[in-house]
Amino acid sequence: MDLATRFRTVRHASEELSVPLSPEDCALQSMPDASPTKWHLAHTTWFFETLVLESQVPGYRAFDPHYRVLFNSYYNSVGEQYTRAQRGLLSRPSLGEVRAYRQHVDERILTLLDDPGRDQAAVDETVVLGLHHEQQHQELILTDLKHGLAQNPTQPVYRKAAPPTADVATVLAWHEFEEGLRTIGHSGDAFSFDNERPEHRVFVARFELASRSVTNGEYLEFVEDGGYSRPELWLSDGWATVQRDRWQSPLYWYEDSDGWHAFTLSGPQPVRPEDPVCHVSYFEADAYARWAGARLPTEAEWETTASGPIDGNFVESGCLEPRPSPAASGTPAALFGNVWEWTASPYVPYPGFRPLAGSLAEYNGKFMSNQFVLRGGSCATPRSHLRATYRNFFHPDARWQFSGIRLARDPA
Amino acid sequence: MDLATRFRTVRHASEELSVPLSPEDCALQSMPDASPTKWHLAHTTWFFETLVLESQVPGYRAFDPHYRVLFNSYYNSVGEQYTRAQRGLLSRPSLGEVRAYRQHVDERILTLLDDPGRDQAAVDETVVLGLHHEQQHQELILTDLKHGLAQNPTQPVYRKAAPPTADVATVLAWHEFEEGLRTIGHSGDAFSFDNERPEHRVFVARFELASRSVTNGEYLEFVEDGGYSRPELWLSDGWATVQRDRWQSPLYWYEDSDGWHAFTLSGPQPVRPEDPVCHVSYFEADAYARWAGARLPTEAEWETTASGPIDGNFVESGCLEPRPSPAASGTPAALFGNVWEWTASPYVPYPGFRPLAGSLAEYNGKFMSNQFVLRGGSCATPRSHLRATYRNFFHPDARWQFSGIRLARDPA
Amino acid sequence: MDLATRFRTVRHASEELSVPLSPEDCALQSMPDASPTKWHLAHTTWFFETLVLESQVPGYRAFDPHYRVLFNSYYNSVGEQYTRAQRGLLSRPSLGEVRAYRQHVDERILTLLDDPGRDQAAVDETVVLGLHHEQQHQELILTDLKHGLAQNPTQPVYRKAAPPTADVATVLAWHEFEEGLRTIGHSGDAFSFDNERPEHRVFVARFELASRSVTNGEYLEFVEDGGYSRPELWLSDGWATVQRDRWQSPLYWYEDSDGWHAFTLSGPQPVRPEDPVCHVSYFEADAYARWAGARLPTEAEWETTASGPIDGNFVESGCLEPRPSPAASGTPAALFGNVWEWTASPYVPYPGFRPLAGSLAEYNGKFMSNQFVLRGGSCATPRSHLRATYRNFFHPDARWQFSGIRLARDPA
Amino acid sequence: MDLATRFRTVRHASEELSVPLSPEDCALQSMPDASPTKWHLAHTTWFFETLVLESQVPGYRAFDPHYRVLFNSYYNSVGEQYTRAQRGLLSRPSLGEVRAYRQHVDERILTLLDDPGRDQAAVDETVVLGLHHEQQHQELILTDLKHGLAQNPTQPVYRKAAPPTADVATVLAWHEFEEGLRTIGHSGDAFSFDNERPEHRVFVARFELASRSVTNGEYLEFVEDGGYSRPELWLSDGWATVQRDRWQSPLYWYEDSDGWHAFTLSGPQPVRPEDPVCHVSYFEADAYARWAGARLPTEAEWETTASGPIDGNFVESGCLEPRPSPAASGTPAALFGNVWEWTASPYVPYPGFRPLAGSLAEYNGKFMSNQFVLRGGSCATPRSHLRATYRNFFHPDARWQFSGIRLARDPA
Repeated sequence: MDLATRFRTVRHASEELSVPLSPEDCALQSMPDASPTKWHLAHTTWFFETLVLESQVPGYRAFDPHYRVLFNSYYNSVGEQYTRAQRGLLSRPSLGEVRAYRQHVDERILTLLDDPGRDQAAVDETVVLGLHHEQQHQELILTDLKHGLAQNPTQPVYRKAAPPTADVATVLAWHEFEEGLRTIGHSGDAFSFDNERPEHRVFVARFELASRSVTNGEYLEFVEDGGYSRPELWLSDGWATVQRDRWQSPLYWYEDSDGWHAFTLSGPQPVRPEDPVCHVSYFEADAYARWAGARLPTEAEWETTASGPIDGNFVESGCLEPRPSPAASGTPAALFGNVWEWTASPYVPYPGFRPLAGSLAEYNGKFMSNQFVLRGGSCATPRSHLRATYRNFFHPDARWQFSGIRLARDPA
Repeated sequence: MDLATRFRTVRHASEELSVPLSPEDCALQSMPDASPTKWHLAHTTWFFETLVLESQVPGYRAFDPHYRVLFNSYYNSVGEQYTRAQRGLLSRPSLGEVRAYRQHVDERILTLLDDPGRDQAAVDETVVLGLHHEQQHQELILTDLKHGLAQNPTQPVYRKAAPPTADVATVLAWHEFEEGLRTIGHSGDAFSFDNERPEHRVFVARFELASRSVTNGEYLEFVEDGGYSRPELWLSDGWATVQRDRWQSPLYWYEDSDGWHAFTLSGPQPVRPEDPVCHVSYFEADAYARWAGARLPTEAEWETTASGPIDGNFVESGCLEPRPSPAASGTPAALFGNVWEWTASPYVPYPGFRPLAGSLAEYNGKFMSNQFVLRGGSCATPRSHLRATYRNFFHPDARWQFSGIRLARDPA
Repeated sequence: MDLATRFRTVRHASEELSVPLSPEDCALQSMPDASPTKWHLAHTTWFFETLVLESQVPGYRAFDPHYRVLFNSYYNSVGEQYTRAQRGLLSRPSLGEVRAYRQHVDERILTLLDDPGRDQAAVDETVVLGLHHEQQHQELILTDLKHGLAQNPTQPVYRKAAPPTADVATVLAWHEFEEGLRTIGHSGDAFSFDNERPEHRVFVARFELASRSVTNGEYLEFVEDGGYSRPELWLSDGWATVQRDRWQSPLYWYEDSDGWHAFTLSGPQPVRPEDPVCHVSYFEADAYARWAGARLPTEAEWETTASGPIDGNFVESGCLEPRPSPAASGTPAALFGNVWEWTASPYVPYPGFRPLAGSLAEYNGKFMSNQFVLRGGSCATPRSHLRATYRNFFHPDARWQFSGIRLARDPA
Repeated sequence: MDLATRFRTVRHASEELSVPLSPEDCALQSMPDASPTKWHLAHTTWFFETLVLESQVPGYRAFDPHYRVLFNSYYNSVGEQYTRAQRGLLSRPSLGEVRAYRQHVDERILTLLDDPGRDQAAVDETVVLGLHHEQQHQELILTDLKHGLAQNPTQPVYRKAAPPTADVATVLAWHEFEEGLRTIGHSGDAFSFDNERPEHRVFVARFELASRSVTNGEYLEFVEDGGYSRPELWLSDGWATVQRDRWQSPLYWYEDSDGWHAFTLSGPQPVRPEDPVCHVSYFEADAYARWAGARLPTEAEWETTASGPIDGNFVESGCLEPRPSPAASGTPAALFGNVWEWTASPYVPYPGFRPLAGSLAEYNGKFMSNQFVLRGGSCATPRSHLRATYRNFFHPDARWQFSGIRLARDPA
C-alpha cells in the first residue's frame, strides 16, 4: 500500500469510529486520563499540521491558530497546552468544525505526498509516525469512550456487536523455554517507535509461559477466594489502591441478582467464563499471579516467545471484547490481540536508547518512570499497528484499557 | 394571563435560551456548582413530572424511569440523585430526547390544567411553583453557560448583544432612612417562596443607602489601590480565598495591553467604567465596602427601601450585562435588575418560618447555613420572577452569578 | 482584685493546666484547628510582649526575635505567621524555654503595671484584654488537648476527676417569653470584647425556651431513631458532613459491648443519660431540634433570658465534663457553664459595630462569616471570663468544643 | 563479635542517636513518610518482641498489649497498624516509657540468646535480621529528624559536627567497563536481605562510570543553567513534581544575600562546591544526567564495579554530611558512603526471587513497584550495615534521604 493510500485508510478509520456517536458523545471526558473522541480526532490532525505541514509547506497558514494550543497533548517544545483535565469543556470547535479541520489537513498532506519535490525523508517518516500515532488514538477513542459511557446509568450502547460465538477456552498448558542470551528490540529500517530500539542482548533464565491468557472464570475463582480482601496477595501500593477505590472486581463488572455482568461497548453483558479477563490493572494482574502460584512474564520473556504472524482478535473483528482463542500447538496462543498483557517489566529505556530528534523526543522517552510494559495488542488495536517488539505502557493502577493477564513461572 | 398560557410562555422561554447553542454547548459542565443547559431543561421538566403528574394523573407512566434519578437535583425524599459533579457526563439522553421529554410533559400538564375535575389547589399551586422554579433555572442556564464558555480560550459568543448605549452612571448619592420597627417578608395569597414568609417585624436603626450600585470604574480604584493584596480589608475566610484562588479582579476580568477586558456572553468586551460591577463574591463586596468606608446593607434595610414597581434591566432587555441606570429622584435607583446585590445578612429562616409540605420542604429550608442573601434580581433574571421580598442566596465565595454591590452606611 | 494580682492569677492558671502534662503532651497538634498546649502558653505571652511591651516599654528587646513569627496566630498587621497546621512541629523552643519566656514577660508586665508613669489607658486596657484572651486560650488548651489525646488508642488520662455525683436531670419544662423590642449587647465601661458592642435594640417575637439543655439520654433517642441516617432532618451542608465524615454520634462517643462510652479528659467513661450532651456541632444541634419539633434559640432570645448571676459548672469545678444542673424556679436553669449552647444566629456584626483600633482590629471582626454564635460558657471556661453578652463562635461543623443544645420553640 | 555483643552494640547505637534530643524532638513527625525518633526506637523493639519473643519464649507476656498495634509499621499479617501519618500524635507512651520498653525487651532477648536450648536457627536468624532492620531505622532516625527540624524557622542544631576539612573534589574521570555476562546478587550463608537474592546472570553492555559522584558545584551549574525551568530535561512525572512543589534546588537549599546555604543537622551551612550534592530525587538525578549528556547507571553496572572493601564516609565519621572523597586510582572512588546513588533501575524482584517466610514476607517484596534502586550507603548509614549487593529503594520524588548522583554513559 503506498503512503497516500495508507494515509487515507488510517485517517478514514478514525472517522468511522465516530459514526455511531452524537456530538455530545464525542465531547465526553470522564477522567483526566481519558479524552473526548472529538479531541482525539483533532489532536491526531494537529500532529500532521504541526509536525509536517508547518515545517514542510512554505507559507502554510494554520487552519485555526487556537488549535495549536487546544490540541497539543503534551509537547512542551511546541508550546502551551490546554489543560488536560478540561478537554471535555471544549464545546467549541464543534464536531463539525473538527471534521472540517481533518479534511483541510488531509488535503494538504495528500498534496504534499504527491509532490515529488518534497523532503521525502522528513515528510514521509513523520507521516508514517503520524499514522501510527493515529492508530494509538483509535484505540484510545474506544477505551476512553467506554469509560465515559460507563458513567451513565442508562448503560448506553456504542455498537451492538454480533453475539459471541460458542468458542470455549482451551485448557491451560505451560510451555517451557530454555535459558540463554537473547536479542530483543527492533532493528532495521521498518517502522518502530523509538522506545523499541535499539536491539540488544539480554540474558533470560529458563522459564515457562502459559498457553493462553487468564479467563474470566479463572479470575472469578480469585474473586470468590477473597482475592480483593487479602493484603498478603498484593503489592503495598496495590493494596492501598484496592482500599481507597474499593475495588472488588475488574473495572466494569457488577453483580446483580442474575450474577456477574460487565458494561461493554455493546451495553451490559453477562460475564462469560470462557472469555479472557480484561480491564484489570497491573496490581490486579500481579495479585492474581501470586494467588495462582505464578508470576507475570518479563518483557524479554514475552518477546522472545512471540514469533510468528500478528494474528488474533483485533479491532477489525468488530466484537470489541476479548474472546476465547483457538488452540495453538506447541506455542503460547493468542499472544497478539484480545487483551494487552501486563508484563513484570517497568517501562524504562533500552540500553543505548536514543529518543527521536526535536519535538518528537517527547513522544515516548519522558514517560519512562512509574509505568509497566504491556505487550501484544487488544481487541481495540488495529492489527497493522502491532509488532512483536511493540511496547505499550500504563501506570500500574490503570484499568480502562483492554488489559489482561498472561502467567509465567519458574520451572520447578 | 391564565395559568395554561403562563405555563406555555415560561416553558417556551427556557427553550428559547438554548436556540443559539449546539448540543455540545448544552452539555457543558465546568464546575460542580454549574449544570449543563440540557440538564436544566430536563430537571425543570422532571419537577412537573415528579411533583405534579406522578401524584395527580392516575396511571401516569414515566417518560423514562431513568430520568427520576438522572434529573433529580437534591430531593432526598424523592430518591437517589445522579452525582451532581458529573451531570456533564450525560451524553445520553441527547438534547433531542430532552426536548421530546419537555414536549411530552408539557402536553400532559396542559391537559391536566384543562381538566375541571383536577385537584385545583394541589395542581395549580405546584404548577405555579414549578414555573417560578423554571425561571430560577433560566437564570442559571445563562450563568452556568457563561462559566462554561469562559473556560474556552477561543472566547465563544453566545449571542451578540446590541452595542451598549452611551448612558453614564449617575453621581453616587446617599439616601437616609429613619429608624423604626418595620415589617418585612411576604404575606397574603400571592405567590412567594416559603423562605420569604412569614411577614414579621424587625427593628431597623437609622441608615443611609447608596443611590445606585458600585460601578466598574469605582471598583477599579479599589483594585488599583491594592485591594486584592491588603489583608486588613478582608474577612479572614475571604483573604484565604483570595490567596488560594489568586483572585486579582472580578471573575471574567483580564488585563491585556489594551487595558481591562471581561468575557461576556457576547464574547470579550472592554470593561466600561460606567457599568455596574458584577461577578464579585460576598467577600469582595464586603472588602470593597470596608475600603470605601461603608458597609453592605442588611436585607431588612434593603427591603424596606424597595417600594415601587419592579423595573430595571432584566433578561428581557437582551443585553445580558448590567448597564447604567437612569437617575431616580428621591429614592435609590435600580434596586431591581442589573446585578443581584449582596446583603450583609446570612441566609437564615425568618422567625416562624415553615417549610412547604412533603418533598417541597427541601426546596429552600435546607440551605440555610453558610450562605448570604442577595436581593433585587439581575440582567439574567426574568422580570416576572422577581418581588421586593425575594431572597436569593449563595455562598460568600460564589462569583459566577451576576452579583454586585450596593453600599450602605451608618449616619455620622 | 487589682490588675497586677489579676494578671498573676490568670497567668498562673494557664500554667496550672500544663502541670499534669509531659513535654510531649504539650506539643500535640491533632488538626489544624487545634494547637499544642505549649503553643498556647507561648502565644498568650506573645500577646503581652507584642501588643504591650513592644509599644509601651522604650528599648524593649524581644526575648527571642523568632517568637514574633512563631507565636503570631493570625495578626497580619503584626507580620508573618508560622503555618497554623504545623504548630505541632515546633519541638524548639522547648516547654522549658516557653516557661522561661512566660516568666520573662510576666516580670516586665508586672514592672510596667507598677510604674505610675505608664500610659495607663493604653497599658491597662490592653493587659485586661490580654487576660481575657488568655482565658479563651485556657479553654482551648483543654479542648485541643482532649482532641489530641483522643487520637491515642491507649486513651490517656489528663486528670482523674472526682466521680460524678448522683444528680439527675430535671424534667424538661418550657418557659414562655413575651414579644417586645429588647436591648442586647454590651455598654458601659466594664470590659467586653468589641463584638459584644454596641448595645442595640432588636425586636423579639413571643417564644419559649427550654428549662435546661438536652441530655445524653434524650440525644440517644435521636441516635436510636436513625437521626444520623435521615437526610430530612439535616441542613444540606450538615448532611454532606455526616456522610463525608461518617458521623454516627457526638464526637468522642463509641459503642462497645458494654454500651455507649465517651472519651473524656479523665479517660473513657460510660455515657451517663443524665448529663448534658456535648461535643455536638451546629449541624447536629439543628438536626436534633428539628427531630424534637423545636428549634435553636436566636442569640437575642438567649441573651434576653439570661439575667442573674454567672453561676454554673465552670472550669473551677474541676470535673471537666458537663453535669446535671439543679432545678431553678421560674427561669431557664444552667444558661451558664456546662456546655456552650449553639444559637440559630450566624456570627455577624451588631449594627454599628466598630472593631478595636490597630492590630486588635483583627481580634474578632474578621471572622464574621460562616460561623454561628454560641452562648453561656462551658465546664472548661473560667467563670470570671464570662458575661451574659458574651458571643463565642465556631463553624457549624465544629465539634471539639464543649458545645451542646438548648431548645427553643414558637408558642402554639 | 558474638551475636549477643553485636545485639548490645547495635541497640546501644540507636539510643545514642537520641541523646542530643529532647522528648519533644523525639516526637516530631513532619510528613507521613517520616516517623518520630521515639517511634523508631519503639518499632525496632516491637520487631524483636513480636517476631522473636512472642514465638520463641513460651508464656511471654507483652510489655504493653497496645504496642502491638502502635508500633507495627506495615505488617498486615501481624495485625492492625496505627495510622502511619499520625505517629507524631502518640505523646504516650513517653520517651521514658519507650526506653523502658527497649530495656525490657533487650534483657529478654539477651537471656534467650544465652539459652543453649533455644531454637538457634529461628532465633539467631531473626535476631540478625532484626539488627539489620534496626540499622535501617538508625539511618531513618537521622533523615526523618533532619526533615522535622528543617520545618522550624529557628534552624535547630542536632549536633555540631567538626568543621569540614579542606578536602577538594577530585577531577571527574570516566572508567570504562567491557561488555559481558555478569553475575550480580547475593549468595551464600552470610546475611543479606531477601531482595538481594538470588545471585543471577545479567548481560551488561560496554559502559563508562564516573570516578566520583556529582558535586554541589557541578549541580549549581545545572541550577544556574535553568535546569529547574526546562521541561525538556525532565521525565514527565518529574516535571509535574517540579511545578507542583515549586522545586528550584535540592531539598534544604536556600539562597540568601550571602549565596546558597543548606540546612544540615549541624544547623545552616554554606553550600560547599566541593561536597557531593545530596537530597536530590530520582527525577532531579535523571534531569541532571540528561543535562550533562550522561545517564544514571543500572544497578547491574553499579554492582559489577563495586568490588573491594566497604570504605567511605559512613555515620561513624560523625559529620553527617557528604564530604569529598580521596582520589582512588583505577577504579571509581567512593562508591560506598557519602550519598546513596540513584540507579536507573526500578526496584523489581530478581529472577527467581523468593520472599522470606511468614510475616517477614512483607519485609521487602511488597514494595516492588514505583520505586527506584539506590546503591552504596550514605553518611548516615552504619558501615557494618552495607554490602555491595545492598538494594535500597525509594519513590522517584523522594528527597529527604542522603541521595546523590553518580553518572554513567555509553562509550562513544
